[in-house]
Amino acid sequence: MRIALGIEYDGFAYNGWQKQETGIGIQSLVEKALSTVANHSVDSVCAGRTDAGVHATGQVVHCDVQSKRSMRSWLLGINSNLPDDINVCWVKRVDDDFHARYSAISRNYAYLIINKSIRSSLFRHRAWWINSPLDHNLMITGGKYLLGDHDFSAFRAAGCQASSPVRDLQEIQIKRKNDWIIITIKANAFLQRMVRNIVGVLVMIGSQEKPTDWSLEVLRSCNRETGGICAPAHGLTLIQIDYQEKLPINKTSRFSFF
Amino acid sequence: MRIALGIEYDGFAYNGWQKQETGIGIQSLVEKALSTVANHSVDSVCAGRTDAGVHATGQVVHCDVQSKRSMRSWLLGINSNLPDDINVCWVKRVDDDFHARYSAISRNYAYLIINKSIRSSLFRHRAWWINSPLDHNLMITGGKYLLGDHDFSAFRAAGCQASSPVRDLQEIQIKRKNDWIIITIKANAFLQRMVRNIVGVLVMIGSQEKPTDWSLEVLRSCNRETGGICAPAHGLTLIQIDYQEKLPINKTSRFSFF
Repeated sequence: MRIALGIEYDGFAYNGWQKQETGIGIQSLVEKALSTVANHSVDSVCAGRTDAGVHATGQVVHCDVQSKRSMRSWLLGINSNLPDDINVCWVKRVDDDFHARYSAISRNYAYLIINKSIRSSLFRHRAWWINSPLDHNLMITGGKYLLGDHDFSAFRAAGCQASSPVRDLQEIQIKRKNDWIIITIKANAFLQRMVRNIVGVLVMIGSQEKPTDWSLEVLRSCNRETGGICAPAHGLTLIQIDYQEKLPINKTSRFSFF
Repeated sequence: MRIALGIEYDGFAYNGWQKQETGIGIQSLVEKALSTVANHSVDSVCAGRTDAGVHATGQVVHCDVQSKRSMRSWLLGINSNLPDDINVCWVKRVDDDFHARYSAISRNYAYLIINKSIRSSLFRHRAWWINSPLDHNLMITGGKYLLGDHDFSAFRAAGCQASSPVRDLQEIQIKRKNDWIIITIKANAFLQRMVRNIVGVLVMIGSQEKPTDWSLEVLRSCNRETGGICAPAHGLTLIQIDYQEKLPINKTSRFSFF
């Protein structure tokens, strides 16, 4: 029987989603909890392999289990076997051909910036602190050049293993509220570090170090070296994966408190 | 010369504001940083002595310093001597009769509840997770009975050292957004654990374990034993202290992201 799970985590203490040779990957703790409840060894496949320090409110995972349990028993059982910085939000039985990664139609990330002169201790692990003023309207203009189907080689990490650099960037929303800037971004899929590299370019546009069409220039170069800095991991949260299947949505996931 | 400081902190790692015999009080770290920058020993007085685990975005402190520094030098110097879970937001020179505690006209706290069936790992240190449904409209009605000048003995911790149990509760706002409930509460001053004891009573009203006028019954009893549970510390944040003096306000302090 195949089940899908929605997962939330605070990425601070972990070396990313994947099982790691050094540090702890979130995947290994989730699989350990799954295996305990299933009473057999369980492997999992996730929708988005988040990097070290990146958070999630809407990660999706699938796995195959032989034990019969109610969905509620899976949910409560797995959570009681996870540390308090990782939790399952929902569990649903899915068809055997459902695949957390390949069935996903699109991915949604949110990037949180706190833009004020003094650091914020309460949000030190959740938002990128930028002390020079950012003009979010310039960032909105700069972001528009990236929309659509493009070769995103210029926004790709050196170690990225994707076979093609082409992605369809479907949405970039940038909103400011007082000292906060939140960037939500949706694509069919992302290359490694693509969101953080896009945020890095938009921040250089917002701070007026670069003109608004610099994002287009970087995009067209297809060369990572023309780009900006990579935004730090701790501002990034994987908030939602979209599928044809109707899966439960974590209502709090889309930074709904914003 | 007397200076006032606005302070933000994540209370998780600390045993409250005050210098402690066991554990670390935030006050001792702030005074240590102040003393380093002033180059002499500095004592501080705060507006609200928060309990262990309680956060602040708008704590106010005053102290007397002999060294001449620009306000910016104080600010940057103190922050560079503080751990990353405590920071000063602003520093301002004030009159010698300004007193962080006695000059304060009113105090504002926010209490954050996450009300959904499954825990939230990302907010585990910031919001009280309540898995049974709360009707926030009942909580609004229940809160109204507490407004005004009253003897709040029923909402007072056993060890509270205040000479009078009478306080003027000036505002209670309760808002829901999706799974979040935020309670903001303003009074001339608070007794020890008063906000958390009020939240405990409102939650029992919201969950329909008690009728809406139970808050009035508890209030009139003047007896802590008639009250509800004390809401956990980690949902509480001291967000603003009001003075006659014009002091800088931390714009992000009032949970403005909500």
